[in-house]
Amino acid sequence: MEYDTIAAISTPMGEGAIAIVRLSGEEAIAITDKIFKGKQPLSDVNSHTIHYGHLIDPKTSRMIEEVMVSVMRAPRTFTREDVVEINCHGGLVSVNRVLELALTNGARLAEPGEFTKRAFLNGRIDLSQAEAVIDLIRSKTDRAMTVALNQMEGRLSNLIHSLRQTLIETIAHVEVNIDYPEYDAEEMTHQLLHEKTMHVRNEIDKLISTSKQGKILREGLSTVIIGRPNVGKSSLLNSLVQENKAIVTNIPGTTRDVLEEYVNVRGVPLRLVDTAGIRETEDIVEKMGVERSREMLKKADLILLVLNNGETLTDEDEELIRAAKQLDTIIIVNKTDLEQKIDMDKVISLAGGSPIISTSLLLEEGVDQLEEAIANLFFNVGIEQQDITYVSNSRHIALLNQARSAIDEAIAAIEAGLPIDMVQIDMTRAWELLGEIIGDTVSESLINQLFSQFCLGK
Amino acid sequence: MEYDTIAAISTPMGEGAIAIVRLSGEEAIAITDKIFKGKQPLSDVNSHTIHYGHLIDPKTSRMIEEVMVSVMRAPRTFTREDVVEINCHGGLVSVNRVLELALTNGARLAEPGEFTKRAFLNGRIDLSQAEAVIDLIRSKTDRAMTVALNQMEGRLSNLIHSLRQTLIETIAHVEVNIDYPEYDAEEMTHQLLHEKTMHVRNEIDKLISTSKQGKILREGLSTVIIGRPNVGKSSLLNSLVQENKAIVTNIPGTTRDVLEEYVNVRGVPLRLVDTAGIRETEDIVEKMGVERSREMLKKADLILLVLNNGETLTDEDEELIRAAKQLDTIIIVNKTDLEQKIDMDKVISLAGGSPIISTSLLLEEGVDQLEEAIANLFFNVGIEQQDITYVSNSRHIALLNQARSAIDEAIAAIEAGLPIDMVQIDMTRAWELLGEIIGDTVSESLINQLFSQFCLGK
Repeated sequence: MEYDTIAAISTPMGEGAIAIVRLSGEEAIAITDKIFKGKQPLSDVNSHTIHYGHLIDPKTSRMIEEVMVSVMRAPRTFTREDVVEINCHGGLVSVNRVLELALTNGARLAEPGEFTKRAFLNGRIDLSQAEAVIDLIRSKTDRAMTVALNQMEGRLSNLIHSLRQTLIETIAHVEVNIDYPEYDAEEMTHQLLHEKTMHVRNEIDKLISTSKQGKILREGLSTVIIGRPNVGKSSLLNSLVQENKAIVTNIPGTTRDVLEEYVNVRGVPLRLVDTAGIRETEDIVEKMGVERSREMLKKADLILLVLNNGETLTDEDEELIRAAKQLDTIIIVNKTDLEQKIDMDKVISLAGGSPIISTSLLLEEGVDQLEEAIANLFFNVGIEQQDITYVSNSRHIALLNQARSAIDEAIAAIEAGLPIDMVQIDMTRAWELLGEIIGDTVSESLINQLFSQFCLGK
Repeated sequence: MEYDTIAAISTPMGEGAIAIVRLSGEEAIAITDKIFKGKQPLSDVNSHTIHYGHLIDPKTSRMIEEVMVSVMRAPRTFTREDVVEINCHGGLVSVNRVLELALTNGARLAEPGEFTKRAFLNGRIDLSQAEAVIDLIRSKTDRAMTVALNQMEGRLSNLIHSLRQTLIETIAHVEVNIDYPEYDAEEMTHQLLHEKTMHVRNEIDKLISTSKQGKILREGLSTVIIGRPNVGKSSLLNSLVQENKAIVTNIPGTTRDVLEEYVNVRGVPLRLVDTAGIRETEDIVEKMGVERSREMLKKADLILLVLNNGETLTDEDEELIRAAKQLDTIIIVNKTDLEQKIDMDKVISLAGGSPIISTSLLLEEGVDQLEEAIANLFFNVGIEQQDITYVSNSRHIALLNQARSAIDEAIAAIEAGLPIDMVQIDMTRAWELLGEIIGDTVSESLINQLFSQFCLGK
């Protein structure tokens, strides 16, 4: 397929050493040649080579930037089209000037995700791989990135392909049997169908079983810290951030803070919610009461409920424990440096099985145990291997569940001895649903919507 | 010279399509080869070529990223050393993972500005060109970028070189005359000296005369908006931001706001100070009073003082006009849509020559005139040509002023008929001071300090 030539800034906005304006499309090289002055025209150079020169505005003959231009010819490129990357100085004015020059000389501004969309439309990657690209960029932990990278490299695609292959081959086989009944008895056809559909169902179940962890890795656990004033909520927050924010930001030089407050607790990304509320009141008496805490519970995947070891349980404490116990909650009995006044038996009986961890955040005691409890709550040890293919994307999970229902119906139809055509309808439906994951059977509007969530320049 | 191999993230931090980890030094290619798996070892590839492949952690054999690697061999590189650029996916985790892998396999984390420092130390650029690199990245307007780009391309350097050449040739010539007096009379030596030093002084003066505008272009005008409550300060702010912030951020896709609030008024970058104070009170009665305004005047290069056309002048108004009139102030008589009650004659007499502009920000009237007044205050029309070499850096300005003093003393000595050696001392001093601008005669500690202001990865 052929499309017009698009251009966008492909590096994050901000001040940096280098920024890239990327062009893709049939005219990418010709457009760059209009504005680039180097040793030789880019139309003459080899693919996958880099060229020093200057950008000159052809209208004014004015020099716009000093650049390095990379030329990559189709089809060995990200989009499978001709791609030019203009490396310029990483300032806002510079990179906008370069983009503007590309746009006024024949390129169109790319929509978000349009480069990746072309990679998909031109058949270089399938839809689940394309979706992994954005997951990879947004991943907040090492482990989340590995999940995305595996998906991008086609692990999930391969599994889905193989399941669809099984389904289509079985359907074909059954049709042959129907057309040429002398080759096979009806009983054997039913047996084959049952065997194959059960296999597909098992494989789908395996994938679905990874989805809870997959989603957590991808999106992070929305985590709130609740408790009465002065029990140590801000100390807990600081302790988590100090020990763990590291993994995303402590490489020297990555000085700018990430925009969302993520901490990485043993591979589990916690997205800390409403930390501003806790921070603001850090040095004065904490203002957050029970009412506010109740509200926050609604948005949480994980609740860290802090109690004070040095005080008897108040009605408010009890109310919070009750409110939180239906959810994934860890109870933290803080201030073990004070004489114990809290009634631990009562805490245990109210907690209804939620893990209880004793800490003295003041003395930096118990934080390790807390982190272990968080990790245990969401990851069984056995499931931590690198080579698991996690399903992490809600769209994929929904499609897998629908495909499983279709397979369930096929199996029920087989077991009820219903006519084979009925079974085939369900199997074909499952085949189609699995195809939506990789984009084989998917509507254009869905594709547009998926790619619109991408960042610009990708 | 040879240095160890350095690595750093060279794109801005944040989520984007592409991020770059750059390596420079003798081992750059060997280190990358330890972690890169592509079609062939990078040690075998041609310079200035691009290679697709994967990064693999040699310790764990685990795949770390899918990358494009650019190999550029010395000396045709930014640093004049071997340079490798690893283009990876633009997420925080991804780029940090790639950097970490480079660091654990033999690279050292680059200090801020260390790549540019090497370009300087290896003789590819001089110090004023290196300083222009950071100015270019930080430039807030098109015009500021052009100033930096010209400086980076060596315009200022060439002027400085030519002045130093004149000085050294004159000193040499005079020495010859002293050694072989038969060739020339003392009077002629004096005449030559006078002529040459006057020429150098004129040229230095020309450069110094561009420094006010140069500094404004480079650093922006620290601008405050003052006035009594409810005169229209927040409307003025909004109007300036809406109409002008554009140039830095309105290219579709540059959605993230710049960190500092800059507006570009006809090429003059205004750095708006304490806009938060104005914004916060936007919808309620503005709280900012005279006391606060007085404080703000201290930090300002440009004052926009807003008065209310529909009210008589208050004592507070008068006080503000008096406080501001020693500075670069524009008085804005706002709300011309209301019946005039303000005593314009009095405003004019108090203003002491500051420009007075009438506006109705409500009806969007008068903003053009205001912007013209701002531009006129800082740029005479004649000086706007592209081809002026502006001196914009405080260090350069200070050195030019010192060099001028030394030349002044030389001229005074010549005119007083003092011995030629005395004159030579002053001329040599001027030659040295000019040399500091381009880094010919400059201490290591100054160099270190200058480069430490760079961003990482440059």
